[in-house]
Amino acid sequence: MRDIAVFSGNAHPDLAREVCAHLGVPLSPTRISRFANDCLGVQLQANCRERDVFLIQPLVRPVQEHLVELLLMCDAARGASAARITVVMPHYSYARSDKKDAPRISIGGRLVADLLVAAGAGRVLAMTLHSPQVHGFFSVPVDHLNALRELAAHFRRYDLSHTTVVSPDLGNAKEAAAFARLVGAQVAAGAKQRFAGDRVSISSVIGDVTGRDVIVLDDEIAKGSTVLELLGKLRESGVRSVRVACTHGLFAAGALKRLSEQPDVLEIVCTNTVPVPVDGEPTEKLRVLSIAPALAEAVRRIHNGESVSALFEQS
Amino acid sequence: MRDIAVFSGNAHPDLAREVCAHLGVPLSPTRISRFANDCLGVQLQANCRERDVFLIQPLVRPVQEHLVELLLMCDAARGASAARITVVMPHYSYARSDKKDAPRISIGGRLVADLLVAAGAGRVLAMTLHSPQVHGFFSVPVDHLNALRELAAHFRRYDLSHTTVVSPDLGNAKEAAAFARLVGAQVAAGAKQRFAGDRVSISSVIGDVTGRDVIVLDDEIAKGSTVLELLGKLRESGVRSVRVACTHGLFAAGALKRLSEQPDVLEIVCTNTVPVPVDGEPTEKLRVLSIAPALAEAVRRIHNGESVSALFEQS
Amino acid sequence: MRDIAVFSGNAHPDLAREVCAHLGVPLSPTRISRFANDCLGVQLQANCRERDVFLIQPLVRPVQEHLVELLLMCDAARGASAARITVVMPHYSYARSDKKDAPRISIGGRLVADLLVAAGAGRVLAMTLHSPQVHGFFSVPVDHLNALRELAAHFRRYDLSHTTVVSPDLGNAKEAAAFARLVGAQVAAGAKQRFAGDRVSISSVIGDVTGRDVIVLDDEIAKGSTVLELLGKLRESGVRSVRVACTHGLFAAGALKRLSEQPDVLEIVCTNTVPVPVDGEPTEKLRVLSIAPALAEAVRRIHNGESVSALFEQS
Amino acid sequence: MRDIAVFSGNAHPDLAREVCAHLGVPLSPTRISRFANDCLGVQLQANCRERDVFLIQPLVRPVQEHLVELLLMCDAARGASAARITVVMPHYSYARSDKKDAPRISIGGRLVADLLVAAGAGRVLAMTLHSPQVHGFFSVPVDHLNALRELAAHFRRYDLSHTTVVSPDLGNAKEAAAFARLVGAQVAAGAKQRFAGDRVSISSVIGDVTGRDVIVLDDEIAKGSTVLELLGKLRESGVRSVRVACTHGLFAAGALKRLSEQPDVLEIVCTNTVPVPVDGEPTEKLRVLSIAPALAEAVRRIHNGESVSALFEQS
Amino acid sequence: MRDIAVFSGNAHPDLAREVCAHLGVPLSPTRISRFANDCLGVQLQANCRERDVFLIQPLVRPVQEHLVELLLMCDAARGASAARITVVMPHYSYARSDKKDAPRISIGGRLVADLLVAAGAGRVLAMTLHSPQVHGFFSVPVDHLNALRELAAHFRRYDLSHTTVVSPDLGNAKEAAAFARLVGAQVAAGAKQRFAGDRVSISSVIGDVTGRDVIVLDDEIAKGSTVLELLGKLRESGVRSVRVACTHGLFAAGALKRLSEQPDVLEIVCTNTVPVPVDGEPTEKLRVLSIAPALAEAVRRIHNGESVSALFEQS
Amino acid sequence: MRDIAVFSGNAHPDLAREVCAHLGVPLSPTRISRFANDCLGVQLQANCRERDVFLIQPLVRPVQEHLVELLLMCDAARGASAARITVVMPHYSYARSDKKDAPRISIGGRLVADLLVAAGAGRVLAMTLHSPQVHGFFSVPVDHLNALRELAAHFRRYDLSHTTVVSPDLGNAKEAAAFARLVGAQVAAGAKQRFAGDRVSISSVIGDVTGRDVIVLDDEIAKGSTVLELLGKLRESGVRSVRVACTHGLFAAGALKRLSEQPDVLEIVCTNTVPVPVDGEPTEKLRVLSIAPALAEAVRRIHNGESVSALFEQS
Repeated sequence: MRDIAVFSGNAHPDLAREVCAHLGVPLSPTRISRFANDCLGVQLQANCRERDVFLIQPLVRPVQEHLVELLLMCDAARGASAARITVVMPHYSYARSDKKDAPRISIGGRLVADLLVAAGAGRVLAMTLHSPQVHGFFSVPVDHLNALRELAAHFRRYDLSHTTVVSPDLGNAKEAAAFARLVGAQVAAGAKQRFAGDRVSISSVIGDVTGRDVIVLDDEIAKGSTVLELLGKLRESGVRSVRVACTHGLFAAGALKRLSEQPDVLEIVCTNTVPVPVDGEPTEKLRVLSIAPALAEAVRRIHNGESVSALFEQS
Repeated sequence: MRDIAVFSGNAHPDLAREVCAHLGVPLSPTRISRFANDCLGVQLQANCRERDVFLIQPLVRPVQEHLVELLLMCDAARGASAARITVVMPHYSYARSDKKDAPRISIGGRLVADLLVAAGAGRVLAMTLHSPQVHGFFSVPVDHLNALRELAAHFRRYDLSHTTVVSPDLGNAKEAAAFARLVGAQVAAGAKQRFAGDRVSISSVIGDVTGRDVIVLDDEIAKGSTVLELLGKLRESGVRSVRVACTHGLFAAGALKRLSEQPDVLEIVCTNTVPVPVDGEPTEKLRVLSIAPALAEAVRRIHNGESVSALFEQS
Repeated sequence: MRDIAVFSGNAHPDLAREVCAHLGVPLSPTRISRFANDCLGVQLQANCRERDVFLIQPLVRPVQEHLVELLLMCDAARGASAARITVVMPHYSYARSDKKDAPRISIGGRLVADLLVAAGAGRVLAMTLHSPQVHGFFSVPVDHLNALRELAAHFRRYDLSHTTVVSPDLGNAKEAAAFARLVGAQVAAGAKQRFAGDRVSISSVIGDVTGRDVIVLDDEIAKGSTVLELLGKLRESGVRSVRVACTHGLFAAGALKRLSEQPDVLEIVCTNTVPVPVDGEPTEKLRVLSIAPALAEAVRRIHNGESVSALFEQS
Repeated sequence: MRDIAVFSGNAHPDLAREVCAHLGVPLSPTRISRFANDCLGVQLQANCRERDVFLIQPLVRPVQEHLVELLLMCDAARGASAARITVVMPHYSYARSDKKDAPRISIGGRLVADLLVAAGAGRVLAMTLHSPQVHGFFSVPVDHLNALRELAAHFRRYDLSHTTVVSPDLGNAKEAAAFARLVGAQVAAGAKQRFAGDRVSISSVIGDVTGRDVIVLDDEIAKGSTVLELLGKLRESGVRSVRVACTHGLFAAGALKRLSEQPDVLEIVCTNTVPVPVDGEPTEKLRVLSIAPALAEAVRRIHNGESVSALFEQS
Repeated sequence: MRDIAVFSGNAHPDLAREVCAHLGVPLSPTRISRFANDCLGVQLQANCRERDVFLIQPLVRPVQEHLVELLLMCDAARGASAARITVVMPHYSYARSDKKDAPRISIGGRLVADLLVAAGAGRVLAMTLHSPQVHGFFSVPVDHLNALRELAAHFRRYDLSHTTVVSPDLGNAKEAAAFARLVGAQVAAGAKQRFAGDRVSISSVIGDVTGRDVIVLDDEIAKGSTVLELLGKLRESGVRSVRVACTHGLFAAGALKRLSEQPDVLEIVCTNTVPVPVDGEPTEKLRVLSIAPALAEAVRRIHNGESVSALFEQS
Repeated sequence: MRDIAVFSGNAHPDLAREVCAHLGVPLSPTRISRFANDCLGVQLQANCRERDVFLIQPLVRPVQEHLVELLLMCDAARGASAARITVVMPHYSYARSDKKDAPRISIGGRLVADLLVAAGAGRVLAMTLHSPQVHGFFSVPVDHLNALRELAAHFRRYDLSHTTVVSPDLGNAKEAAAFARLVGAQVAAGAKQRFAGDRVSISSVIGDVTGRDVIVLDDEIAKGSTVLELLGKLRESGVRSVRVACTHGLFAAGALKRLSEQPDVLEIVCTNTVPVPVDGEPTEKLRVLSIAPALAEAVRRIHNGESVSALFEQS
């Protein structure tokens, strides 16, 4: 079997190191330079020739910098005669731009998929894409993992006999239902009505939550507005307790602080697909689960040609 | 402006004729032969050279025959030096295959999009794709219409003051909400749990339907099992009346008969994106709305380079 | 060497099983579903990751169903990270559509070749393409076998000292000449004049056939009209005996019955590139030769990187 | 309509000038330089921007020089923002390399088609391709003319009541039959058996030629060996007179002299798809027909978006 | 002629407005949103359908933001059915990454060219690319302008009879020689030796500068270190006066201030391909020439299909 | 590791044999035929299936013949199922056509790179490309060697303490500087001004050469005019001795004779990237260094997946 070579951009080196530790291989160094004219240059500092190359980079803030870094890394690996280039993208933020709901807009999720392929990416390892259809935006094979196993393992420590999993959005309700089945809970969802721009309004919670222990589950939390509005509705319905969980804890614009300040929120759970917590934000209620073991196992199986689906089945 | 040439395959010539009548252009003849070895051959029987060619073909039963016909028509138009080839596909049935929810399956919605482009399609005019993300499966421009205006115009004849629009599935609830806003109604949704294969079970209706006049709205009705199960739940909740509406009335496996036999279903409404009704099925309760005027107007605007979004805005 | 994985669609599972038996590998299961809207879905039910995948599917009746099945199988194998995808297509029926002999027609042979590549096919194993130029329609490597060895082995049991091989068509005469050399016979050909559509007329037989034992050899027999007309001419010329042979025994529209009813036709020989005989047709005069050993040997050599041409040289 | 711009390489400027004269447009100058290192450079010396560019270049001796010239001309026109690039290739010599009849050989006819597209060709105007399947080697639209009308117009001056058109090769017999129908003659063919390399042997003439006036018709005559061997067989059969005709009169290796020296050959007819006659060769029996009017009319129709097939139907 | 539509990203709206003013067309609005997860979204707010779309965006600081903006704009225009998409990129900063002078590095200049094409760009209008070979990195037509006419027009106001144009680098000396010819001056060059990273050292000035009025000419000035080191050498050689000129005045890291503080630098001249001056920097010695008229004229000619080379010949 | 197979075209079989000798593998035979119509045909006469195929062919006179040969070899290897095709092109003559310095010209260096990829080349091994940017013209990985080590090893036999390396052209001065550092010499350069066509004039030598031992170093010497003009300037400057060196010794149009006749030229050094000397030319002063060991080592490393940059670092 050809040798493996793993590189990380600047987006999340801690995660890359953790994945490599689980794999038992070194994280090869990447030199990323910024020229006086603000352009980036990449040098992969380990032999790639005929290697099975993995490039670990979630598309997190600053997204455009990390995206161009990743494209340059793909290009460098291709030019350096890599046998295969797998982009390990634990958070594909552009996946949110997955449809054309206004005239003359870009579909960023498809565009960035095409850019990665144009830059040399031969396959992608992704986690909890915003919608499952985004898988189909890629013209190269995608292994699509989720973090439901990790989240379920965490929540099983609690008594879940009166628990309802609540999706803040109808669109994500299927994922919440899958998680609810995994932990033996019920499911409910917010019916979100979106107005101009980012202003949203939760019109109602559909499903029974009165007197229940609620786990609010979303794929990602950015500004947290949706969850905060949902919390208001849940309180009106008389929920007993609230925990908040997501795969991608972006926590933009003080979201972690605002969520933590909600007295009835007992816990905020996310994974380390993105670097959390942000400096200076409160972390008492925060619990970050590591998906590095899962990523490492997936990388190992991709490298060895073993079935990935056998391990990470959609539940 | 270059001349227009419109052709139809065997899938739905009635619709093509109706579109052409609205456009005021002739439907150019297509000769589709079946050879002794069962292969198909296509001859477009009007000059295509430097013409703006439109090929009208919904992917309806028998889907594979109509798909290959359409691919051959694209190829013939390309070989015949068409200036531009627009596939008018009022029903894109393969759009349902839009994600990889089991290992080693095909994503037919993406594959067929790629096949159409490989065969020469330069743009696509589609209607009510099963999920909006399917738009992003195409590497060529797509104009994506919906039939909500036509459906709303139909239902506005009724008193809708006690009406709730019910989506049988959480996934389609956004479309139902859009329609509800259009006619000034409320919205609810079934929380569907899917088991092995095609067997489905509606676990509950989320949202308030007791004593309401209900319009069940789905993007397509094939076997109708989902709607039938939903009807059971709606009856338990004590709805006042039921109407069923969809864009694509496929009505497979006797669905129209089974739905018509439900005494509390007052009306079944669909459009002619696909040929309905099926021979021998009861049509007393069926009302088929024509989307030919909308398609014709879109074709006209595409041909003339006018904005399509200005006309058919997502509501 | 990477593992091999062999799958079959619905077109000819018997042949696939026979090939696998000769290879000594299992035929991995394929699940092909038909949804309520008549679309097909494919699941390859064995691990494909980094495997050398072979998909066996002749394009036989119903051709469009089997073609789309095959395209979906390619897509599924690609998405499942197959190391290499070889389409084993013992009968490529669309190869007959290999030229543009009328305005604005499709060249199906080239189109389907492009579709297979668009769907992920990385190489093709074909047999007795209708014309050798069809090889050049593919942008991926093609191994092109023929069945002349199998046919020759069969006919060598007879006394061939007064035998003439007759091609029904000038276009196929080179193949007949090659076969004649192989069995030490002479060669002749019908000069076919084609009128509108499928109606054909043999104007004359060029070459000497009076008093000869004739082997009529064609690449495929579909409706058999050409062979039947040729038989009339041969009788006029006073042939001594007639045997009919072809690689692809499609026998459409009762062709096998009609040929069998010719009293002077002693034998009808074909191979199992396609499933024969059709149910209910007479088989007394039919002899089906198996090309499974040849296909299996070619697959083995492709898999092992051994020369295929060394074995199956064009004669 | 966008302006037209016509350029010629070094292969056949006389033909290009004649085509332009018929079109009534100037032949724009092309500067082709040879650098000290033997590389070629091309400058198109008239504005191409948004023009409808036609590049006239048959692939004649020295073929490689003229091919690279043509590729550079395509590239220059593309870089100069041509609206459309049509390669007018009256003789596509690489079409003879159309199949893989030995292991590990190139299929030059497909390769050169791909190279032209890679260099920017958007469509092709060809004449009498060696086999009709070569049409399918191109991924861009091809208008495929033949010279049968010109040849027929020439031969109609004679009494053709006892005439048989003879194809030297079974493979080209269909074209000969089409020509025979056009002039009301009969058809026959040589059954050619090819041995190693270029050595060929005509084993027999199939069809009746005794006492007939024969027109030997081939698509091209290069060394003329096939025709010369056929002449021997025709003499054995007691033909009354012989005329030789072809579309592409390459006349390599003294072929024109050798054919002219045959006393019973009354006339040698070809067209000017390639430059003939070669200097110093005898021309008493040679008659060169011009296909410039046909090419000009095809160019005019391509430019104006009129049907080409309406004019040059395959007969 | 199809309508024109001009859009600008956030990189340099002033230039875009100025170009539009010269063209006499409105600058159509672009809405660029930043989502909570830091991804960008683009909406072109004027009809693009069948329009000739021009997207004006130099790749200036922050380069990655502006690059992704531009890619999204291309994608949006393509999805909105633009007839043609021309990227007007007055400064292509990634052109500096034009070779592989260390192992396993990216060639950003080629990569970004490919990304633009992947995103839908159909042609490019560029100015003073860092090396002329970068033109060849693009697979679509490029119109490559320079600013030598504008610079020459500016300097002709001075007495240039004792002037030498000095290139700081041997690599750019040909451009300096061209400029020198244009203004009737002599030429000299620095022989730069580059050490690790960005540290450079001018070992010597080759050519005669003693007692001369010097115009230092470079394609771009970023940090200005090269020019500053050159000034030291020029002083040692006893130059009479110094003016500094470039096309792209990036002036990073206080470069404008440092250059302005050189007492013997009489003037610093650049163009507005990039936004200058930077806020708070001294501008007394700075003279910014507008290339908007040149860009506008080039856009006009591209739109009208007139020759651009006739106007902006390389000197 | 897969087997290796090395083939040579007609351009430089001696070099190919020498490379194979160093590699310890046989040079597999290639059969290149010329048909009567002047087209070329290629047969690779050793099994390529799943082999690591190397095709050795510098693009030397007759360039067009050798280029088409190489393209056909790529196509044949691809069709023969090569696992990987590496084009070993020790001299890429079309690299000189690397920019668009006049309107409507081809950029041959980019075009030929694209043609090679279209024909199946998967990677390229090149030496001393005319400009380093040409690397970026290829969309496949390129290993770019230079001959500075070989040249330096040769010159180190002399006392170089008073030596200056002179580049005839500012454009190549960086390469000369690198070589000068390698042998511990100084550097100078001619400032060449190019007039119409191939006539050049060296206006001056910049840098100090009086009384120095000069090594004139260029990447290639074709007609030698540039070097001869430079020699005149060097004599005016009073150089002590002259040696001439280059990588690619094309020596066209009697260049070797003219250079050898210069009495003060002590030695002319080149490598065998191209076949030298030309028959009948004087060779007393000529010294040809072999780059076969370097090419062989690079091929070995490419085949084994070892770092090539580790060996041939750009200096």
